[in-house]
Amino acid sequence: MSDKIKIIIDADPGIDDAAAISIALNNPQLDVRLITTVAGNVTVDKTTINALKLVKFFEAQVPVAKGAALPLLKPFEDAARIHGESGMPGYDFSGYGEPINKDAVTAMYETLMAEPTPITLVPTGSYTNIALLLRLHPDVISKIERIVAMGGSISGGNMTSSAEFNVFTDPHAAEIVYKSGIPVVMIGLDITLKALLTAPSIEKLSGLNESGKMLHALITHYGDGGEQRVPMHDVNTIFYLLHPEAITTKEYWVDVVTEGPAIGETVADIRGAYHDGKTNAQVAIDIDTEFFNEWMLAEVAKMK
Amino acid sequence: MSDKIKIIIDADPGIDDAAAISIALNNPQLDVRLITTVAGNVTVDKTTINALKLVKFFEAQVPVAKGAALPLLKPFEDAARIHGESGMPGYDFSGYGEPINKDAVTAMYETLMAEPTPITLVPTGSYTNIALLLRLHPDVISKIERIVAMGGSISGGNMTSSAEFNVFTDPHAAEIVYKSGIPVVMIGLDITLKALLTAPSIEKLSGLNESGKMLHALITHYGDGGEQRVPMHDVNTIFYLLHPEAITTKEYWVDVVTEGPAIGETVADIRGAYHDGKTNAQVAIDIDTEFFNEWMLAEVAKMK
Amino acid sequence: MSDKIKIIIDADPGIDDAAAISIALNNPQLDVRLITTVAGNVTVDKTTINALKLVKFFEAQVPVAKGAALPLLKPFEDAARIHGESGMPGYDFSGYGEPINKDAVTAMYETLMAEPTPITLVPTGSYTNIALLLRLHPDVISKIERIVAMGGSISGGNMTSSAEFNVFTDPHAAEIVYKSGIPVVMIGLDITLKALLTAPSIEKLSGLNESGKMLHALITHYGDGGEQRVPMHDVNTIFYLLHPEAITTKEYWVDVVTEGPAIGETVADIRGAYHDGKTNAQVAIDIDTEFFNEWMLAEVAKMK
Amino acid sequence: MSDKIKIIIDADPGIDDAAAISIALNNPQLDVRLITTVAGNVTVDKTTINALKLVKFFEAQVPVAKGAALPLLKPFEDAARIHGESGMPGYDFSGYGEPINKDAVTAMYETLMAEPTPITLVPTGSYTNIALLLRLHPDVISKIERIVAMGGSISGGNMTSSAEFNVFTDPHAAEIVYKSGIPVVMIGLDITLKALLTAPSIEKLSGLNESGKMLHALITHYGDGGEQRVPMHDVNTIFYLLHPEAITTKEYWVDVVTEGPAIGETVADIRGAYHDGKTNAQVAIDIDTEFFNEWMLAEVAKMK
Ligand SMILES: [Ca+2]
Ligand SMILES: [Ca+2]
Ligand SMILES: [Ca+2]
Ligand SMILES: [Ca+2]
Repeated sequence: MSDKIKIIIDADPGIDDAAAISIALNNPQLDVRLITTVAGNVTVDKTTINALKLVKFFEAQVPVAKGAALPLLKPFEDAARIHGESGMPGYDFSGYGEPINKDAVTAMYETLMAEPTPITLVPTGSYTNIALLLRLHPDVISKIERIVAMGGSISGGNMTSSAEFNVFTDPHAAEIVYKSGIPVVMIGLDITLKALLTAPSIEKLSGLNESGKMLHALITHYGDGGEQRVPMHDVNTIFYLLHPEAITTKEYWVDVVTEGPAIGETVADIRGAYHDGKTNAQVAIDIDTEFFNEWMLAEVAKMK
Repeated sequence: MSDKIKIIIDADPGIDDAAAISIALNNPQLDVRLITTVAGNVTVDKTTINALKLVKFFEAQVPVAKGAALPLLKPFEDAARIHGESGMPGYDFSGYGEPINKDAVTAMYETLMAEPTPITLVPTGSYTNIALLLRLHPDVISKIERIVAMGGSISGGNMTSSAEFNVFTDPHAAEIVYKSGIPVVMIGLDITLKALLTAPSIEKLSGLNESGKMLHALITHYGDGGEQRVPMHDVNTIFYLLHPEAITTKEYWVDVVTEGPAIGETVADIRGAYHDGKTNAQVAIDIDTEFFNEWMLAEVAKMK
Repeated sequence: MSDKIKIIIDADPGIDDAAAISIALNNPQLDVRLITTVAGNVTVDKTTINALKLVKFFEAQVPVAKGAALPLLKPFEDAARIHGESGMPGYDFSGYGEPINKDAVTAMYETLMAEPTPITLVPTGSYTNIALLLRLHPDVISKIERIVAMGGSISGGNMTSSAEFNVFTDPHAAEIVYKSGIPVVMIGLDITLKALLTAPSIEKLSGLNESGKMLHALITHYGDGGEQRVPMHDVNTIFYLLHPEAITTKEYWVDVVTEGPAIGETVADIRGAYHDGKTNAQVAIDIDTEFFNEWMLAEVAKMK
Repeated sequence: MSDKIKIIIDADPGIDDAAAISIALNNPQLDVRLITTVAGNVTVDKTTINALKLVKFFEAQVPVAKGAALPLLKPFEDAARIHGESGMPGYDFSGYGEPINKDAVTAMYETLMAEPTPITLVPTGSYTNIALLLRLHPDVISKIERIVAMGGSISGGNMTSSAEFNVFTDPHAAEIVYKSGIPVVMIGLDITLKALLTAPSIEKLSGLNESGKMLHALITHYGDGGEQRVPMHDVNTIFYLLHPEAITTKEYWVDVVTEGPAIGETVADIRGAYHDGKTNAQVAIDIDTEFFNEWMLAEVAKMK
């Protein structure tokens, strides 16, 4: 029990968030202390409902706290074209509970401060809540073990050729995270566009169990074609927590672009030329894709 | 009683903050519901102590809540060279109380939501707390009457030739405020460098009463020479609340510069050429300086 | 002869350019070697015709070379609303000659390189030609004595509250000039909005001589009201060359804003806080306005 | 003869520039009218000497004109760490001729204006000369068929994770090119890092002829290891001119980042979401690498 990895998931479910949360809630090595929500793939009202649906589906004893409805400065632009109007389309969940009566930032703060040892934050949406937490409660920094964050890219984006969705959604929040001094593991498009769930893997999901049916339904409703090889972006964060040996990382200084045509991009100083040899992030650059597929199926197979 | 102006002062005392708070706490037309503090002239620990000293000095029944220690993104740069190491040098206050057990953002949120009618926010430091409030609790917007903010300039700065101290300290927070849709009255250097307290006015202060002695002590300890004509920047917000007729304003669209050499500047579209005729602020551009001097002395004269 | 000040005027006439050029062509202490033109108040085709009209009017032996039609990067925005469609409205010039068969940059280059001693450049439009010259022919730098440039402001703009027209027109060119290492005297709105030609001075102009009639006609056609106190922006450069004792300057580091809402602004590091004590410009901050009026009338009185 | 492709090469040789120029000078379908030089891999004095060495080596009747020594605004940063101190290390050229007595911009202008039909520009260094040409002589635009430019990337950089060397060297010049309205074919790292010359190909070069020996010598002196698979960046432009069918392109709007951490990056609006459906460039995204290797060897085999 004592060697479980304690995490807080800060998410915008979202199809791939749903898969990440599902695995995290069911894996015995992970201890999910709190799920917080943020606007992203769809509005925060919807991402909160979606998180609550998953918690109820798995009958998990994990509080859900609703977070930021808007990025810090950039106007909000959702991704409903990809994730559907609801954010988790295609499966009929049997209701959902209530979020706790605290906002995400307060909930994160109290959860972190109550723990004797630091906790890992796992943002799979934009980092607005975490940025607000760091600015409102700077004493919390010593309670954060590290931030394993889906987002960014050093090899091309999906919003523009530069910017990945989560960082693009709130680049100022991302800049706060990368300049916080907290260790950051950047799980970006550099690996998540490699770790594709293959068509056979997707097919197998539906036959595993009810959880597999649910995930199969969501995944095949991806707005950009979910029947072929599909990225499972957010799932890579959970995979990294459990199997860091299957992901190659490099230490870089990472800046975030907050203005201009590359807004929302993460820029790594790949030659170590511009930041006096300093680094602020471990950037995931390669992944064992075959193992990722096997692992994800095995994780779902253990669910209800 | 019902026609009092309800305000929350969000300050970084600071000598001129001290004068503004002193007048606000003693003027019967103003109902100060809360004082929140922020890093600025000195650290937030010090500005909180300073706010508490003033509350105790006047035996006021106003809660003080401690706020942000750091700007949202820009590295913090204090103004201790102007306001002294303590922020309120030169007078020996007889102790101070405790801040309430809530952070500034939560305190503002609860205070605002508890009121039946909207309240005016009066920031006299950087706007970090208000920016955090607006992002964390967007439902609060309907509870804010307007924001009468010391900060900015459309005629030259005091940090660079472009930027005024409060906006320079946290330009991203200022951008959030100016883009919030809440009515903003910009009380900037355009008037505060005109509304100078003259040497005779300063001299008279010390003879008025204990409050006058206290303010005289602070003002004559201004790091950039407080014995000649001295700006009372933050006091202009309180003056405006009580005597809007003595200040000329113009409606403009105001942008905030968050990057580059003009960082921290407020830019007004003075020709109405670039924002489709829209405006987001009333910018104070002229003030009756003589009346300001008379008024300030009269306000202090009524104190203990 | 040897103590004449050799200058090249790079202008966008423009009413105040016309006044500046008129004085320069007639003052015996100035040796105008070349007039180059640039897009600004109106298109470069029109500013070239206007420069040629002035040269013919005064039967001056000064070549005119046509320059840049567009700023380096910023889209072109003229000021015909102020200077009329032609740029020099209200006076019927009797024709004009031809520009020389060389572009402005080549003409400046050859003129500068042919001189044994360095020459002063006097831009009264945007600095596109000079920027192109410096990049195309960097060996010319040692041939430039200094640049006495109308443009910029450290106390508020006329395009936005930040930006002055000449620098706003081509901020990238201005940045090249300010970073060139060549001594720059910034003659900005800080003095040109003080050195107003009074209504009596304007009235007197028309009675002096034909030149006075011509300038009176132009000045009273200013699009923003030319019958009351009127700025003579560009004339201040010539005044400075001849009477530097009547203008107060301060040494500052000046940056130019090339992006964002303050685009086209000059920013002075007025506290010497951000550039290691380095300076790159003398910024004109005060002027003897009364003397300026007397001097301008006296200069015109000596004309034909 | 009439169906030759007329080109001007604007280069910073540079090892891969040398290979590109060598092929262009020897291929009968290409008519190289002019070679201009620019600072980049090494100083413009050195790149000019290097271009002259190649012209003499092949006894080509092509004028060489020396161009810009510095980028428009960004401080110059060479790549001698990759291309050696001289820019073309490892082969002993038997002397070189003289550049023509005209600067690159004037030479390009006169060459272009003298032709009855438009010419293709092929920049393989930074685009400073072309930017200066477009601003100094806007009438030249109708004489430019298109610009086939090595530079940029939409899938990760080589200076930072964002920026490719040529665009990084002078981003403002690149922005001028991309906003010029002239058709641009972007030959960026997206293909040049795929079109690697294999070790066997490199080995074969030295046995072909003297030209092969020369190119083999240069290529094996690449500072970042020239004995394994090596990118031939600039050669891809010539390959595209002759074999467009072997390169896949997509139409995008491309912006250039001129400030901040992503400075020097090209950003493509890959979803067509932000520029009203407009495009300004054909971006090369895939290439037939095997054919590229065969073709390059075949081209060299035809040389002396
Ligand atoms: Ca997500
Ligand atoms: Ca203050
Ligand atoms: Ca002018
Ligand atoms: Ca090259």
